[in-house]
Amino acid sequence: MNTTLMPPVAPLSRKLAGALQEKIDQKTKPPGSLGRLEQIALQAGLIQQTLQPEVRHPAIIVFAGDHGIAAEGLVNPYPQAVTAQMVYNFLNGGAAINVFCKQQQLALKIVDAGVNHIFGPHPLLTDHKIAMGTHNYLHGPAMSLDQCKLAMKAGATAVLALHQEGCNLIGFGEMGIGNTSSATLLMSCFTGRPLEDCIGSGTGCNTQQLIQKTGILQQALAHHPPMQDPLQILATYGGFEIAMICGAIQQAAALRMLVVIDGFIVTTALLAAAHMQPAVTDYCVFAHCSSEKGHQALLQHMEVQPLLMLDMRLGEGTGAAMAMPVIQNAIAFMQHMASFSSAHISNRQH
Amino acid sequence: MNTTLMPPVAPLSRKLAGALQEKIDQKTKPPGSLGRLEQIALQAGLIQQTLQPEVRHPAIIVFAGDHGIAAEGLVNPYPQAVTAQMVYNFLNGGAAINVFCKQQQLALKIVDAGVNHIFGPHPLLTDHKIAMGTHNYLHGPAMSLDQCKLAMKAGATAVLALHQEGCNLIGFGEMGIGNTSSATLLMSCFTGRPLEDCIGSGTGCNTQQLIQKTGILQQALAHHPPMQDPLQILATYGGFEIAMICGAIQQAAALRMLVVIDGFIVTTALLAAAHMQPAVTDYCVFAHCSSEKGHQALLQHMEVQPLLMLDMRLGEGTGAAMAMPVIQNAIAFMQHMASFSSAHISNRQH
Repeated sequence: MNTTLMPPVAPLSRKLAGALQEKIDQKTKPPGSLGRLEQIALQAGLIQQTLQPEVRHPAIIVFAGDHGIAAEGLVNPYPQAVTAQMVYNFLNGGAAINVFCKQQQLALKIVDAGVNHIFGPHPLLTDHKIAMGTHNYLHGPAMSLDQCKLAMKAGATAVLALHQEGCNLIGFGEMGIGNTSSATLLMSCFTGRPLEDCIGSGTGCNTQQLIQKTGILQQALAHHPPMQDPLQILATYGGFEIAMICGAIQQAAALRMLVVIDGFIVTTALLAAAHMQPAVTDYCVFAHCSSEKGHQALLQHMEVQPLLMLDMRLGEGTGAAMAMPVIQNAIAFMQHMASFSSAHISNRQH
Repeated sequence: MNTTLMPPVAPLSRKLAGALQEKIDQKTKPPGSLGRLEQIALQAGLIQQTLQPEVRHPAIIVFAGDHGIAAEGLVNPYPQAVTAQMVYNFLNGGAAINVFCKQQQLALKIVDAGVNHIFGPHPLLTDHKIAMGTHNYLHGPAMSLDQCKLAMKAGATAVLALHQEGCNLIGFGEMGIGNTSSATLLMSCFTGRPLEDCIGSGTGCNTQQLIQKTGILQQALAHHPPMQDPLQILATYGGFEIAMICGAIQQAAALRMLVVIDGFIVTTALLAAAHMQPAVTDYCVFAHCSSEKGHQALLQHMEVQPLLMLDMRLGEGTGAAMAMPVIQNAIAFMQHMASFSSAHISNRQH
């Protein structure tokens, strides 16, 4: 499938690893003392295939889509209309992701992946609407295989546009009332873990609501046969925004961009992408562990370490935005720190 | 002592807490979903006594000093000369803290607290030199009580200068070969914990060196009688840079600045300050948990939560610098995010 649908992602060559580590160790600091930043600097060098990695035009794309399950008000304390209302909030600059992007000079793009609302044209908004929301997976697949492919292609197109503007560091965010439910189902299917390990309170279910949500998602899993094909799983339980992020991640990795993975929902989009092209994970930095319950288990399952743990669970790419300065500092130290010899500093005696 | 030596630090009034929390909860996000950022926004509002907290001229001051114990090459794999060499590196812009401050547009000041070297004048450098390094605490107190007071006053003076330039968010860093040994002794004395819980590998001792370092620090503790007076403990085991940071923290809190606490060494300076004026901690944000072994135990002892865990252990205020964007984003969301009503967004139904 990969060869036709998505550009191929090459496993990261570690050819430069020795030279990059040598450069890191010659910086004026005790070896290893910049911790996670050293790992990121090394990874960026491997991705960009250079001893002088750099950050150019860092950006966040937020994909928004509606979910059939939410139209019935079964899994979320907020009404479905909030998805469209929040898109307007993004366009008006009032959401958390706007504030963080402005504060940190990150470009921000919003993509209508399939919101149940018609938006007028707006300079920040790209229209990739697949439909007015997905179907309810209690009754059938959330989307057709063709819609799923179309969504993945659209995600790739959005990345390509930013890459052509010079961007080489990109994070993805999402907005979609009901999409933690999609992510929960995707996690359960791809990892084989029981639903209870994957489900959390989303935007803030109480205990009663969580019991109801668990029952509904169990019903959804029972309604569909077990599946092996990642595209089919994604089409059955995904959202348009999740499928677009799945495509966007693969396109970004294929373009050798550094990909910043946000919270629970974006991580499940990566999970789907990694089942299509395992090498994508080599290009990812895991921004944070959100306080959504399934996220920590999912990161452990993928054997990856998040950078930050700030008890955030907002989505919108806010976790990715918070990680950007860490990544920028990691690459800046590679570029600008003096070496022991250039600064005439005595190295360790032992 | 407080009334004469240091300006008094008032415990933080929680009078505005309800109104601040109400404002936070009206922002367009699920309640609590910005996690630690919400706590910081609340704390900043309490410190600045306003519902509109703001960040003005954020800055880092790095205090550098030499240690008598290091002159004998007993506790550190780097020679004492590295302290002065690193100060030149700071002045030339080549150190990690320079790179992070430049990347994040933080003001950076370097203070010679007592380096064993005479520096010429430099626009970034403030000369508060107390002496050409401390005495070796194996033989007597590291400094006299008068030197310790002078150092604390100098730290306060450095903060006052930045405050007069408009700064209201400040982090402190340190440079001083041997100063993790000082910090270890201070932690052990102030917390009553055995040395083994407080000692770590500093800039990178191997196992053999760590055993030697432990023996030497046990010798130091045995040489001095048990003490109760925080000033006396600080003078006995401290460094000039640590004493200056102890004074700087108190001055910053007295001026109602938000104080960013860096790693292990700066945290022990705060520990000393908190034994003089317990309210100082109310004004502090704990930037990170370093990978220096004693730091985690110390943060737990103080019952505080670090923001970041990036396996860093470099000092120089680099942990504080990494936390600055988180703090700036926290205050930016309070200032700039829309509320449910201003953005016409439906709030939770349940």
